[in-house]
Amino acid sequence: MTDNERNQDPPAENADLVISGGRVLTLNDRNEIFDPGTVAVGSGRILAVGPSEALSARFTARRVMDAAGCVVLPGLVNAHTHAAMTLFRGLADDLPLLEWLQRHIFPAEAQLTEEWVYRGTLLACAEMILSGTTTFCDMYLFEHKVAEAAKAAGMRALVGEVLYDFPSPHYGPIENGLKFTEALVQEWKGDPLISVAVEPHALYTCSPELLRRCHDLACRLDTRLIVHLSESEAEVAQIRERYGHRPVEHLERLGVLSERLIADHCVALSPSDIEMLAFHRVNVVHNPESNMKLASGIAPVPALLAAGVNVALGTDGCASNNNLDLFGEMNTCATLHKLAALDPAVLPAQVVLRMATRNGAAALGLGHTVGQITAGYFADIIVVDFQRPHLTPVYDPISHLIYAAKGSDVRHVIIHGRVVLEDGRLLTLDVEEVMAHVRSIAKKIAS
Amino acid sequence: MTDNERNQDPPAENADLVISGGRVLTLNDRNEIFDPGTVAVGSGRILAVGPSEALSARFTARRVMDAAGCVVLPGLVNAHTHAAMTLFRGLADDLPLLEWLQRHIFPAEAQLTEEWVYRGTLLACAEMILSGTTTFCDMYLFEHKVAEAAKAAGMRALVGEVLYDFPSPHYGPIENGLKFTEALVQEWKGDPLISVAVEPHALYTCSPELLRRCHDLACRLDTRLIVHLSESEAEVAQIRERYGHRPVEHLERLGVLSERLIADHCVALSPSDIEMLAFHRVNVVHNPESNMKLASGIAPVPALLAAGVNVALGTDGCASNNNLDLFGEMNTCATLHKLAALDPAVLPAQVVLRMATRNGAAALGLGHTVGQITAGYFADIIVVDFQRPHLTPVYDPISHLIYAAKGSDVRHVIIHGRVVLEDGRLLTLDVEEVMAHVRSIAKKIAS
Repeated sequence: MTDNERNQDPPAENADLVISGGRVLTLNDRNEIFDPGTVAVGSGRILAVGPSEALSARFTARRVMDAAGCVVLPGLVNAHTHAAMTLFRGLADDLPLLEWLQRHIFPAEAQLTEEWVYRGTLLACAEMILSGTTTFCDMYLFEHKVAEAAKAAGMRALVGEVLYDFPSPHYGPIENGLKFTEALVQEWKGDPLISVAVEPHALYTCSPELLRRCHDLACRLDTRLIVHLSESEAEVAQIRERYGHRPVEHLERLGVLSERLIADHCVALSPSDIEMLAFHRVNVVHNPESNMKLASGIAPVPALLAAGVNVALGTDGCASNNNLDLFGEMNTCATLHKLAALDPAVLPAQVVLRMATRNGAAALGLGHTVGQITAGYFADIIVVDFQRPHLTPVYDPISHLIYAAKGSDVRHVIIHGRVVLEDGRLLTLDVEEVMAHVRSIAKKIAS
Repeated sequence: MTDNERNQDPPAENADLVISGGRVLTLNDRNEIFDPGTVAVGSGRILAVGPSEALSARFTARRVMDAAGCVVLPGLVNAHTHAAMTLFRGLADDLPLLEWLQRHIFPAEAQLTEEWVYRGTLLACAEMILSGTTTFCDMYLFEHKVAEAAKAAGMRALVGEVLYDFPSPHYGPIENGLKFTEALVQEWKGDPLISVAVEPHALYTCSPELLRRCHDLACRLDTRLIVHLSESEAEVAQIRERYGHRPVEHLERLGVLSERLIADHCVALSPSDIEMLAFHRVNVVHNPESNMKLASGIAPVPALLAAGVNVALGTDGCASNNNLDLFGEMNTCATLHKLAALDPAVLPAQVVLRMATRNGAAALGLGHTVGQITAGYFADIIVVDFQRPHLTPVYDPISHLIYAAKGSDVRHVIIHGRVVLEDGRLLTLDVEEVMAHVRSIAKKIAS
């Protein structure tokens, strides 16, 4: 090798997109931060991440995104939603739980059509992308329309039709629901954005037999199994009275606890419940704002994490939150558990940010492709504008993401390598049209 | 009177500004909502408010603001801040209280100069205006610079120099502090925006003698008296050990409880504390996010309101929140107390909105001029853009303000009749310059 050859730069690699000049929080195993850092994206994946100095000459990019003054991080994962419930946002609040459900939510849901679910989900996707969420996990009726809406919005989603003993306004008897779920799994197999789970609603709406069948189906199809679990002490009392055991033990006896299970809420847990969830490597989704607004209680998140449980973060639906903004949810999560423990050192910002990214991805079975900025992972990336009064000055960007930022600080969003939000403007949906459709549906709901 | 005269419209009245076409929440005694409604403003005051139909022809306006698709409401009142602590935003989080104070906040504060306080407060004012706050109540060092900054930003403020037994980095010995306060009161007397209070820091930093002297001074000057009170159980234990009584009783025995007192936090209260606060018509400021983040506890707000206490809302300083956004604070307030009571009907949205407007104004002694949209009141008005995905659809605008809106939804802000924010753009401050100054101060703090 001559000196000349040795000094020559290697030929530049091609990238679809290079994001450079920002402070890059990789959230990788070493928690690396590159400032200024560069992320190169190609064919939907992250090609490379590192200091701008080292990477700037390596790639020939079709497009360069300037992230100066911004923080670049993995897209957020909303691990529990009922997206189409945007239709009922603010329809009824500040009411006792049964009155809220029986007099307002159930009658409104009885009118649902697949068209409504599609329109409500598009609105949810708009709101989620605008506030930095790139992946969501959904449970609702007419879930094929949720998949279609997510696909139209360019979002990554794990969807699943809600299943219970009584007839559904969508599929009728439960046998149809199980068949519908299996068909939906097959329909989306191999899709880069959408996957499908088996989703029994809860222990108080699903017989032991149905829970077991759902588990078996999830095993056979190799999908996630998703259920609402131990959302309140009232549920614990009800399940114990009916079956003689607490909800978590009930599921264990049915053989349903496993690492393919995503258990939503898990507010009312005993120490032995926590042990069982940890032993079986169950994924838990924490929804602090919904749990506060509905007065359900406080999930023992620090104890779950200490036991080794993977705890993700979700907003729940818009009837009980009433927004899908994970920035607000992260703030609430970090501060609520300090209060609960009377210890300001509990759930530091770094831990909460992981809950909303890596832990969410892992819960959804996407831990090897989503949730961090690492070469080979899917390019799900958000760029947050820190040049704003409420984010000034910056001593620690992670503190700001949890304690000071809002969803509205998100400037660009990339999902699977595609820019879906650019300078605060949605590129995949016509927001005005999406809002207009939902307004006209809301008129019918209100009347 | 001829028929002709009878049918003729009266001559139009002049207005500086007419805001029309929005949904106007007056928050007046009858809770009137006009949709579409019109507010006419002249000479800093509200001239009239009512249905657009009735008012549109009545005024000749120098300027008309179109509020279609927006909600128009009284500006928010942040009843407890340390505005200049924006300088320390995110400097240290997730730490035990003493370590946070002694290793991070106190050393940073020891470097404070009046220039820093001025720059930090300008940044706070920018953030507050951008998120819909029109009035704030401040306690800090170099408070004359806080008054100047608020005035420069066009904000309404009640300010006061923090007073305690030990020498201050600003005024030195306490005698100077009392003189400084009196001079500051005189200096701003008659100002339309700024007023001054006497502000002893807390019971654990002020001798009984100092608390009594502060009270006497406030009486003589006819100002508010402001103190941190019963922020945690640790404070209760400390005061009880030192003086033999709980903090509230300690103040009562000193003769300091009165309707001129604003008591910040009031987290750790006994039933008899609540009775005493109610009996003496003390104003309480609730700071839920700070109380959560510092793990102080939950103030018994529903019990205080039930006892007839005027409870306002504040953000506290940016070192313990870490933002000044009252929309987030309202959301936290409404949901935290549902959780604490395990009752989703506690603190409905309407009550929380009043805490952040009318109650705040009343606490600051401005109840007859600020906090509602009523003819004769000062024109402190915000216009919130509801044409956004996360605020769609709209069944109940008050629900959205508490459970779904963000500070970033504020589009226009009017203070004392002056438009200070227009279409999200600050008219009174150069935001880039304000942020640049604080960034350069932060470099010195960090080093």
